Amino acid sequence: MFRIDPAFEGASEPLASLPLSEARLQTDARFPWLILIPRTPGAAEIEDLSAADRARLMDEAVLAGLAVRAIGETLGRPVEKLNLGQLGNVTRQLHLHVVGRRADDPAWPGPVWGQGERILYDVKDLALARAAALAVLAP
Amino acid sequence: MFRIDPAFEGASEPLASLPLSEARLQTDARFPWLILIPRTPGAAEIEDLSAADRARLMDEAVLAGLAVRAIGETLGRPVEKLNLGQLGNVTRQLHLHVVGRRADDPAWPGPVWGQGERILYDVKDLALARAAALAVLAP
Repeated sequence: MFRIDPAFEGASEPLASLPLSEARLQTDARFPWLILIPRTPGAAEIEDLSAADRARLMDEAVLAGLAVRAIGETLGRPVEKLNLGQLGNVTRQLHLHVVGRRADDPAWPGPVWGQGERILYDVKDLALARAAALAVLAP
Repeated sequence: MFRIDPAFEGASEPLASLPLSEARLQTDARFPWLILIPRTPGAAEIEDLSAADRARLMDEAVLAGLAVRAIGETLGRPVEKLNLGQLGNVTRQLHLHVVGRRADDPAWPGPVWGQGERILYDVKDLALARAAALAVLAP
């Protein structure tokens, strides 16, 4: 049975159920950032997905990238580069990070994972970010 | 016209031409590590690939993961987790990292990108790593 690892719940909020994955907003105001969690019980690596589901995951990653770009536009910080990461060294449940980057962000040009401290969104920006992402993911 | 960015040449060596991508061995003895560079002129993001090519890239990432596992086995350090990354913040040409991780590697549990200093393979281990990867990629 599929269940989202509770480790994701503290750092992200649900956005939308896509055909393969649960899309969540990483609640870190430093970067527009989504995670995709395929609803595949026990999956930890992309090799644990069928070829068809791997293709779906890539399609959903492109969609998540558009959502991340929309968040950046809405908050006045357009995304300059997308970063994808599938690590799972700490939380094994298969998940793909889709992160919008800018040359003036606090981790540039390094990766975002494990860098510095999360900054929480204020209430207004969180609502704007959610609305921008949902307009792409679940129009 | 497709041409590999010269930035890749100092840090990696060619292994095999897969249907979509050039597979290269990252010459860093700290981690068994391949990069896949799709032969798609001008691509910088996965959205620059067709859906069919994105699916191919995932299939090649699974194959590269098997090659990375084979390198780890050959060198007596079996891979415990695969990490995928598509960043391109420094070198824009689209490329996907496939890295074998262990809980005792020098960057665990953080990402490998931008961490510490590369360690060159000695001649024997480089030959073993190449042979192990090629047995998977171009049997």
